[in-house]
Amino acid sequence: MYTLKWQNDKLYLIDQTKLPVEHVDIECSNYKEVADAIRHMKVRGAPAIGVAAAYGIVLGAMEYTGETGEPFLTHMEEVAHTLEITRPTAVNLFWAIERMTSVVKGNLGRPLEEIQKALLREANKIMDEDMESNKRMGQFGQELLNDGDVILTHCNAGALATAGYGTALGVIRAAVATGKHIEVYADETRPYLQGARLTAWELMEDGIPVTLITDNMAGYFMQKGEITGVIVGADRIAANGDVANKIGTYSVAVLAKEHNIPFYVAAPTSTFDLSLESGDQIPIEERDQQEVTHIQGKRIAPYGIKVKNPSFDVTPNKYITAIITEQGVAYPPYNENFRALLSNK
Amino acid sequence: MYTLKWQNDKLYLIDQTKLPVEHVDIECSNYKEVADAIRHMKVRGAPAIGVAAAYGIVLGAMEYTGETGEPFLTHMEEVAHTLEITRPTAVNLFWAIERMTSVVKGNLGRPLEEIQKALLREANKIMDEDMESNKRMGQFGQELLNDGDVILTHCNAGALATAGYGTALGVIRAAVATGKHIEVYADETRPYLQGARLTAWELMEDGIPVTLITDNMAGYFMQKGEITGVIVGADRIAANGDVANKIGTYSVAVLAKEHNIPFYVAAPTSTFDLSLESGDQIPIEERDQQEVTHIQGKRIAPYGIKVKNPSFDVTPNKYITAIITEQGVAYPPYNENFRALLSNK
Repeated sequence: MYTLKWQNDKLYLIDQTKLPVEHVDIECSNYKEVADAIRHMKVRGAPAIGVAAAYGIVLGAMEYTGETGEPFLTHMEEVAHTLEITRPTAVNLFWAIERMTSVVKGNLGRPLEEIQKALLREANKIMDEDMESNKRMGQFGQELLNDGDVILTHCNAGALATAGYGTALGVIRAAVATGKHIEVYADETRPYLQGARLTAWELMEDGIPVTLITDNMAGYFMQKGEITGVIVGADRIAANGDVANKIGTYSVAVLAKEHNIPFYVAAPTSTFDLSLESGDQIPIEERDQQEVTHIQGKRIAPYGIKVKNPSFDVTPNKYITAIITEQGVAYPPYNENFRALLSNK
Repeated sequence: MYTLKWQNDKLYLIDQTKLPVEHVDIECSNYKEVADAIRHMKVRGAPAIGVAAAYGIVLGAMEYTGETGEPFLTHMEEVAHTLEITRPTAVNLFWAIERMTSVVKGNLGRPLEEIQKALLREANKIMDEDMESNKRMGQFGQELLNDGDVILTHCNAGALATAGYGTALGVIRAAVATGKHIEVYADETRPYLQGARLTAWELMEDGIPVTLITDNMAGYFMQKGEITGVIVGADRIAANGDVANKIGTYSVAVLAKEHNIPFYVAAPTSTFDLSLESGDQIPIEERDQQEVTHIQGKRIAPYGIKVKNPSFDVTPNKYITAIITEQGVAYPPYNENFRALLSNK
């Protein structure tokens, strides 16, 4: 199983809209196909779309047959723009595109083939670093988990959301690897059902005990004392520690606070956006109404019904017990502790 | 549109599993068909299943062709038992069956045809009282709503959950009838989607502005200040004011408290179970896993996934601003205020 794979000058993705019922591979041989795959959530998860966009830049450079220098830069800016406008919330997308664009700019004077090679090296590096980052995050994070914990997670912050291993699920995998017995409750995560379709499937494949619940059951199981902690991923983290993540994360955080259950966020520092003072400034994507009115192509709501479909929400820092990164674990106050964490780099 | 209708010695129901995509009527000509319709949620909502069970008792008596007296009582006890074991949480079911059983017992010595007529009169009375009760609840409840309110509701506590008009939605209808502008946010209410399928449809039919959201979006819209109040129904209310209602209600109540938004319950006093000191003693129905793993017949989760599917949760009284009944509005402390309310009867 892989989330993304570069092979024979093409990017291969597993189509996450079809999992777990069907396993279908998608072959992207040009950057527009990568942009479409991101837009239509065939690949999703902040770190994974960062990696996909990096390879999209590589494909954009490989498609180019014109002059180097300025005309090439203009083309690559068009490529970057096409990839950037696919989804607004996860900052890893912009972070990865910026890293790739720096390589374009730093190599503008060189022959096209060398620039292409430099870009492929950078994309591979982004992918490898993400995997490495998840493993480190897992090591830091697993220390927060106790033998016997029952962890609620929302959406999919697993191997399928990253280059591999996962952020939130990476922490759980690392705890299990040390011999701790951990069980997971997976919120199904409407409207897109990443929990039911992806998290449930990933954890079953790994033999980690997982129970699927609908999103509105989380409070019930917390009330009954069946959940001992929450771990989620993140799409963008502001300088004050406010976290944008999949819609519903905020509700889970409020419930965790009400039940005195620790609420952890696991995310690489590439998810940090220190240019934003607080989460209020994070743009929230509003997606197609059909995600709410239909499930797997079947209509469930009346014709003409008004729908809202914000794809993310922002959890204010006061609800977050700690943020687990590949550089270590940050506790409140996040403003100063992020600085300390990043200066260790 | 009707939820239940007695005609030509048969009970007609609208099949609520098929709404809003299809409008299919179900004809119940014997008590076992009524029991099946309740069990499979073709008719649902605490007051509506009470009324359905009452007519189920009528059908059970009409099917009987033997001796009156003890043999008839034995038969009717079997009928009552079959209807009772369909669903465990909503107390209106047991309340209605008990009322009907008293009529059986009080008329045992009379000719069969007269007992059957007495039972039909009682069932009609339960139905009429429920409708009347909702209208009164609406009058009491609408005073709590202000012009411009945006009310979140969970599940369907509307005409389709009752003999007509609705409990929570009855309050909204009554407020609209007085000229107040009220908008509604409807939680879709997984797994059974009563919000998306029934509440959205009912309110659209009435021209009341309604916006459909997934359950996990409620917190987001409260955080943004877009929701000014919550009104839900109830399946059973304990003596201390703890309320069992559709799974997810508790989470909404916690969120409402966190955002200082009033949280109202609208339910007839037939929903009260004063034999229970607190909500801990309310039995919570666990339904078929397939409601979670499939949506409208389509599989959305991996084969073999472990699932939990509690159909209700209990909201402790401390989260409830007021309970709206046909006898008036009860405020905390509920223990004593329920007594005051019921003594007005």
